[in-house]
Amino acid sequence: MEALDYLAEERRKAEFDVEEMKIAWAGSRQAYEISDRVSRLVASDPVFRKDNRTMLSRKDLFKDTLKKAAHAWKRIIELRLSEEEASKLRFFVDQPVFTDLHWGMFIPAIKGSGTEEQKAKWLPLAYKMQIIGCYAQTELGHGSNVQGLETTATFDPHTDEFVIHSPTLTSSKWWPGGLGKVSTHAVVYARLITDGQDNGVHGFIVQLRSLDDHLPLPGITVGDIGMKFGSGAYNSMDNGVLRFDHVRIPRDQMLMGVSQVTREGKFLQSDVPRQLVYGTMVYVRQKIVADASCALSRAVCTATRYSAVRRQFGSHNGGPETQVIDYKTQQNRLFPLLASAYAFRFVGEWLKWLYTDVTQRLQANDFSTLPEVHACTAGLKSITTSATADAIEECRKLCGGHGYLSSSGLPELFAVYIPACTYEGDNVVLLLQVGRFLMKTVSQLGSGKKPVGTIAYMGRAEHLLQCRSEVQRAEDWLKPQVIVEAFEARAARMAVACSKNINKFPKQEDGFAELSADLAEAAVAHCQLIVVSKFIEKLQQDIPGKGVKRQLEILCSVYALSLLHKHLGDFVASGCITPEQGALANEQLRLLYSQVRPNAIALVDAFNYTDHYLGSILGRYDGNVYPKLYEEAWKDPLNETVVPDGYHEYIRPILKQHIRVARL
Amino acid sequence: MEALDYLAEERRKAEFDVEEMKIAWAGSRQAYEISDRVSRLVASDPVFRKDNRTMLSRKDLFKDTLKKAAHAWKRIIELRLSEEEASKLRFFVDQPVFTDLHWGMFIPAIKGSGTEEQKAKWLPLAYKMQIIGCYAQTELGHGSNVQGLETTATFDPHTDEFVIHSPTLTSSKWWPGGLGKVSTHAVVYARLITDGQDNGVHGFIVQLRSLDDHLPLPGITVGDIGMKFGSGAYNSMDNGVLRFDHVRIPRDQMLMGVSQVTREGKFLQSDVPRQLVYGTMVYVRQKIVADASCALSRAVCTATRYSAVRRQFGSHNGGPETQVIDYKTQQNRLFPLLASAYAFRFVGEWLKWLYTDVTQRLQANDFSTLPEVHACTAGLKSITTSATADAIEECRKLCGGHGYLSSSGLPELFAVYIPACTYEGDNVVLLLQVGRFLMKTVSQLGSGKKPVGTIAYMGRAEHLLQCRSEVQRAEDWLKPQVIVEAFEARAARMAVACSKNINKFPKQEDGFAELSADLAEAAVAHCQLIVVSKFIEKLQQDIPGKGVKRQLEILCSVYALSLLHKHLGDFVASGCITPEQGALANEQLRLLYSQVRPNAIALVDAFNYTDHYLGSILGRYDGNVYPKLYEEAWKDPLNETVVPDGYHEYIRPILKQHIRVARL
Repeated sequence: MEALDYLAEERRKAEFDVEEMKIAWAGSRQAYEISDRVSRLVASDPVFRKDNRTMLSRKDLFKDTLKKAAHAWKRIIELRLSEEEASKLRFFVDQPVFTDLHWGMFIPAIKGSGTEEQKAKWLPLAYKMQIIGCYAQTELGHGSNVQGLETTATFDPHTDEFVIHSPTLTSSKWWPGGLGKVSTHAVVYARLITDGQDNGVHGFIVQLRSLDDHLPLPGITVGDIGMKFGSGAYNSMDNGVLRFDHVRIPRDQMLMGVSQVTREGKFLQSDVPRQLVYGTMVYVRQKIVADASCALSRAVCTATRYSAVRRQFGSHNGGPETQVIDYKTQQNRLFPLLASAYAFRFVGEWLKWLYTDVTQRLQANDFSTLPEVHACTAGLKSITTSATADAIEECRKLCGGHGYLSSSGLPELFAVYIPACTYEGDNVVLLLQVGRFLMKTVSQLGSGKKPVGTIAYMGRAEHLLQCRSEVQRAEDWLKPQVIVEAFEARAARMAVACSKNINKFPKQEDGFAELSADLAEAAVAHCQLIVVSKFIEKLQQDIPGKGVKRQLEILCSVYALSLLHKHLGDFVASGCITPEQGALANEQLRLLYSQVRPNAIALVDAFNYTDHYLGSILGRYDGNVYPKLYEEAWKDPLNETVVPDGYHEYIRPILKQHIRVARL
Repeated sequence: MEALDYLAEERRKAEFDVEEMKIAWAGSRQAYEISDRVSRLVASDPVFRKDNRTMLSRKDLFKDTLKKAAHAWKRIIELRLSEEEASKLRFFVDQPVFTDLHWGMFIPAIKGSGTEEQKAKWLPLAYKMQIIGCYAQTELGHGSNVQGLETTATFDPHTDEFVIHSPTLTSSKWWPGGLGKVSTHAVVYARLITDGQDNGVHGFIVQLRSLDDHLPLPGITVGDIGMKFGSGAYNSMDNGVLRFDHVRIPRDQMLMGVSQVTREGKFLQSDVPRQLVYGTMVYVRQKIVADASCALSRAVCTATRYSAVRRQFGSHNGGPETQVIDYKTQQNRLFPLLASAYAFRFVGEWLKWLYTDVTQRLQANDFSTLPEVHACTAGLKSITTSATADAIEECRKLCGGHGYLSSSGLPELFAVYIPACTYEGDNVVLLLQVGRFLMKTVSQLGSGKKPVGTIAYMGRAEHLLQCRSEVQRAEDWLKPQVIVEAFEARAARMAVACSKNINKFPKQEDGFAELSADLAEAAVAHCQLIVVSKFIEKLQQDIPGKGVKRQLEILCSVYALSLLHKHLGDFVASGCITPEQGALANEQLRLLYSQVRPNAIALVDAFNYTDHYLGSILGRYDGNVYPKLYEEAWKDPLNETVVPDGYHEYIRPILKQHIRVARL
């Protein structure tokens, strides 16, 4: 079959080297090559097809997921894939499954909190998948507040065992992925009780199911927690419920890398600083930010391509209607999201560096950057995932009615993405943590303690609290230093104002509580500044390829100026910019849209997504949308028969006026 | 079983008469009584149970829907329900179904555009459901732009028939509800061709399926368009695809209430003003606004009750943790939505009056208010549905992780609601229509033409463009006239600024195109003013019941001040208020939250929703959330067996290291 490309004309308009942009997006040539190869491998394998996923019943979907997981493992072994390649393969299979937790949480938990002996015993089993594990922390009544968990692990010195128990209904473990139907083991978080003393929450390796017949072990009640948002989506995952009725495990299954319980039942706090666990947190959150750029770019890719395919209104003399991507209202909603995808990509890349940096510092016992790094990663996790969730839904709306069809891929993408706003720290709770860090930084200004890293700008608070933007013409807003100063001034002023208001309260804690919404807004301002700054820093590097850097500069400006417009109240009310300068920013933004327009399709092509991974008829690479939508419709189970099941019982009696006597 | 009420303590806190508030919410005692009675009738009927809906396969869900529709019809006949009661019954069954379109679109289309003879022939058949109809307008390639439809109806003078035809793939009818599997008839919109002349789009009654065996008639291809967003949700509806291959219908099946085609094939434009159709549009949009307040109030009811049940952090000395509703961040997100539910309810009520008013005027050949009414209803449809869609998702997030479970009801509510942002006019397209109306109004200022109705404030543009808010203390923001003037000034200034900027373009149309995003923002400002004003007007009426009016005053202030904070940039940048006044508004808002807090549960109780209609375990009236969540989990099909289907093929081979030889 000849491959028609309905978007070829759009692709010809591009003013930059798309192949080089693919490498810039991927982070390196090597990363690009692995992604490219593995994504094609997955796309070409019929076992990994997913176009029928939203039509499957829960049980069929789950079985299909098990099949894919087994097949993925088989391919990983057969092809002797490296760790990076294996992880990419799972990524491109693109279906939530128990192995996500096994590799992403169970193994890291043992690595991070186990002793050397524990690692030597458990990791080889896990690496070979002779055991399958999950991460059982959240409980039915306890999410954000880990210190409030109720499950107990009571040491019994007579038998040298811990007794794991669920004392209340709300202490039931609830949500852990992979727990419901698959995991043989779990790292269970429970309150450690020794000699009647509560020693806080610790992790324990607990076997849940028999390795012979997969039945739950005595004292263990385990199952799936039921359907979740959407069709397909996270319903492929067996998020589970788990209750313990006095389940005994040997003492050496408490993860004792940090704290220990001795044979005598004595609890020993470790001398290893607790901060070490923050290293893992940075790692996990960096991954979440990277995932945000993936999800966002998928939605944007679909919406951009379909906006070029779709035409509405504006026909002159019977000619074709206008491509909707040519409407300013469409551009005004779509292009800031396109710019955000790139912005999140680059800040995610920077977070990788930050993780390496903080790891090295921790190994050298340098904890100085930890509070700043912790606030920065918490905040970036929060703002990128919130923005991405909203953006996916906005992209769906940008596709008009057809975005509501499962075959557009966007409903499922939304449903599968949004948990990111809640897991690994609820986004609002995280912003409040950032807010507290900001307040602490403000209170220490003038104390001689110099703010470092992403909060360093606060060291120039005196200047930032009184500076005036020098913008006089729209194009002045293209200068990076102008942008950065406006964002710094806004963040500094909001933090300082918040701090002043808190100090008006007799008790500071009351101030924090009363003004928490303001605190969260100050935190957002700080975090948006980080994303803008890191995008600008990226542009100071050498970026090869004709026109590539130029496009990224345009996107960087679009990102910053669209944020400025959205949060104009912050900037103007705090006096960072005048209303006139705000209007000029908006004017410049509009001009930038015209520069993005001819490059829009090529900019989403640079994500290098296969049609399989994208999973959207509206976003097809070739733009051949309508015939494929039409074809797809007939695959719905309702179309298996012309006359629907139920006609004779429920429709005909109405039409024939037999409803009074019909047995319903 | 004894009925425990875990929220009783919360209910005792209420400072107003909840029963009277129920009547205020319902609109009248009679409306309340009908709703109350019919909702309980539905809730107590096992055929209407819906708690298992998200677990059903598409086919089972569809059959369940047919069953409910037939049962509803049976009950309507048996109980001799009035039209209002019947419509309420369908409403509380709460499952999208073909009858929505039969009663809501097919019958109104014939009533609105048919001749007296056509009404006499078709309406009795439709009222008795001897035929079932749908509304076939949207096409695969044509949504918003009705004038771009491609389906043709060509008059054949030889046979006195129209030939209905789908000339292209994109002309396939696509989306009409009830079309896919059920409707026997449709009002089909097609380009009327007489004597080679295109006379624009008109409606035609076309029979689609045999009344004997339900098979599609010759020349007709019809089916379902496939899965849509979510599980359950709109998948109960057979949104359809329809193609015509030269299908012939008699001439008298063109709806000729407005235009006619004579026996000779002559096309006659009617002398009935086309504006008459706007009456129907006002009716439909008023219903959409009312629906918005329903959907929003359901989400808010669930989020509010669960926020009082759920506790996180803040435990002192081992006592219970803090109810999350006591956190300011939660209040700051939740209470503006609670206030919006009431605001939308009252503006919807006012729209009912507006519909009566405009109908009477049209009958008296008074078309003077039409443009204003059209802009007002278009704009209100847009902002209330957009705000509601966002609010449902925000309410889901406010429930933490459990909001993601289907049993929370919020995922399905979101999925089923969001099409409202697209149907009956895409929300952005509608805002642009409002924007154009605003520009026209501005251009006519000083021409002697006095703006009327909701745009009357523009007559005081001179004052509004230079007035300064007199707010000096936070409580000044509680004065209705202060609020109204600030919102009027903002709307007027944004419209005038937009108009000035458009006039800078040599061609006005280029100005409209380039500045469309600004136009949309000005339109939002105008429409928010309407909602605020109508809420304030409502409060000038007599509202009986202890404390009822006081609560509504608080909610009105919360609604207005939270909008002001959200759009602070508009107010400050346009100079309507100073940054200091903006800060005072925010301070007042915070104080208001403390006044809402003790009344929050009672304020959502006033919606008077049964647990059946609410459909949320988190939102249960009795607050008994956790035991019921736990119970519900075990009903998932995955829990039918302890060891999941697929274990032997896909899990065991991994664990036993047989993956290399396993046949996958």
